Amino acid sequence: MTKSILQSSRVAFALLALAFAGRTTARAQIAFPSWNDGPAKRAILDFVRVTTDKANAKYVKPEERIATFDLDGTLWVEHPMYTQVVYCLERVPVVAAQRPELKNVEPYKTVLSGNREAIAKLSMDDLEKIVGGTISGMTTDEFTAEVKKWLATAKHPLWNRPYTELIYQPMLEVIQYLRANSYKTYIVTGSGQDFVRAFAEQVYGIPPEQVVGSTGETKYTYGKDNRPVLIKQPKLLLNDNYTGKPEGIHLMIGRRPHAAFGNTAGDREMLEYTQAGDGARLMVLVLHDDAEREYAYGPAEGLPDSKVGAFSQSLFDEATKDGWTVIRMKKDWKRIFAFDR
Amino acid sequence: MTKSILQSSRVAFALLALAFAGRTTARAQIAFPSWNDGPAKRAILDFVRVTTDKANAKYVKPEERIATFDLDGTLWVEHPMYTQVVYCLERVPVVAAQRPELKNVEPYKTVLSGNREAIAKLSMDDLEKIVGGTISGMTTDEFTAEVKKWLATAKHPLWNRPYTELIYQPMLEVIQYLRANSYKTYIVTGSGQDFVRAFAEQVYGIPPEQVVGSTGETKYTYGKDNRPVLIKQPKLLLNDNYTGKPEGIHLMIGRRPHAAFGNTAGDREMLEYTQAGDGARLMVLVLHDDAEREYAYGPAEGLPDSKVGAFSQSLFDEATKDGWTVIRMKKDWKRIFAFDR
Repeated sequence: MTKSILQSSRVAFALLALAFAGRTTARAQIAFPSWNDGPAKRAILDFVRVTTDKANAKYVKPEERIATFDLDGTLWVEHPMYTQVVYCLERVPVVAAQRPELKNVEPYKTVLSGNREAIAKLSMDDLEKIVGGTISGMTTDEFTAEVKKWLATAKHPLWNRPYTELIYQPMLEVIQYLRANSYKTYIVTGSGQDFVRAFAEQVYGIPPEQVVGSTGETKYTYGKDNRPVLIKQPKLLLNDNYTGKPEGIHLMIGRRPHAAFGNTAGDREMLEYTQAGDGARLMVLVLHDDAEREYAYGPAEGLPDSKVGAFSQSLFDEATKDGWTVIRMKKDWKRIFAFDR
Repeated sequence: MTKSILQSSRVAFALLALAFAGRTTARAQIAFPSWNDGPAKRAILDFVRVTTDKANAKYVKPEERIATFDLDGTLWVEHPMYTQVVYCLERVPVVAAQRPELKNVEPYKTVLSGNREAIAKLSMDDLEKIVGGTISGMTTDEFTAEVKKWLATAKHPLWNRPYTELIYQPMLEVIQYLRANSYKTYIVTGSGQDFVRAFAEQVYGIPPEQVVGSTGETKYTYGKDNRPVLIKQPKLLLNDNYTGKPEGIHLMIGRRPHAAFGNTAGDREMLEYTQAGDGARLMVLVLHDDAEREYAYGPAEGLPDSKVGAFSQSLFDEATKDGWTVIRMKKDWKRIFAFDR
């Protein structure tokens, strides 16, 4: 190669690099239409920029680009109650018809009474018992079909819209932006793995193999016409909350995430585990401080306490101390849902 | 569009289709250099052809293209003993030094005696006990580093080569060909998930998140400098053999494979589960009938019986009845290892 060709190719490279840099900035602006400018948006964009730039010391190889998202309260509405719990509560009459002995056993008795005040007072333990009891005994295929059928008609009491429309548009933009930058996006949820798999691909573009959730055992057996089936068992295999989140991530992914998003104390260990890795890591929490457009609950920062999706002050303090990013829905999000104007 | 343009574009399409058909055939020939022509090679090529051709009734959408491979005896040598068991046997002195109380407890006592005949007579239960006892108590990162270190120096007694060189070249070609046709390739193994993750990406191009194996629990805690770590526990979470294979596939993938490859009765349920899906499905078993170039064991088809990787006559009969493909190493494989001439 002669020197002049080398020089002109250097000029070409420089121009190309400039063109790409310009395009990245433009793409980032296009990619976050539902966000206001602020530290949260900047932290996410900066993280993607440095980890995808080969010239940057914090570059991350594409195969290592793992991002994990909590679901309830991080990617969709979790108030007044987690969607999967609503599903299970509505399934209680069906299950009680098949197993009449449950009609006089708590907490089923309370649910069947229809007394809304009493149902609202059920403890998390009671609700977990109902979840375990109502989503076992059928084949995995039957369960998925049931959930899809329910999601097609069930509506959230406040917005009177399907639950799958109550997803946070700004977070969908983050998922899509990460994916466009070769990040593999996972849901890591305390809700049921099979429940979430029934809609995650259609709603978030996240395939079943990238959903890590609480899950019971299945049992391989032969059903109708001797056809092999997997029957869902009540025995819990993974409780994907708190320490169960990093444990579930190791089980299902086997790599440490470079970015993790959550909104409650149940996501704390996932964010700590993410941060403990080398190089660039992004830890993000969503704070629900928008009573007007969604809900406001903490108890961090003087927001009202909540039984569902609590964001404690100690979690907020850990976030501040460790440099985690806190999204404040009210300030950071231009709109919350796709249907907002 | 005028008729003449329509006709000429039809001609162009026909030519294009021909060109592609020719290219596919050429590519297939290039893709399988270590295979002899025969029913096994044809079955694999036909399956890929029909499931990737949009015009074919058996077309499978890219996101549904899942192929699962057993490891020991299907992708690499498993005789005279599974590689992970060899690893664990060699770790017994290290573990016994840390926990001297094990020195007088069977089966550790026999292993420490160094009596090769007695060690060879240990039952599968004994060997499983050793596996459980030797690969827990350390962090997941420490374990991976240990395995990589061992694999770098350990050698197979027959070939005097690293275990990772004893992979079946024809099967690597199948994995690569499936991947080139948008199949997501998974290892689904009775061996330890973390053990296999330590080399699967480098050796087979299969990333950690696509390795499903037998696995114990991990426990999230804080190690040195308060850094979060996961400690491997002796408690088994998934025994990924027999019915555990489809159960593990549902847990980790959540989709039914379209193609599954195995070589023992421990793979039977995985193949049955694969076949029970709609549309095109490919079920393949590897028969070790090549005493000269590798090993010969069954007991199917009059081959000698084996404690390690047995291929029973009843499995062979099921394969014949259900139209599964049986690879006969002796006839179907031109060469077995990359180092064969």
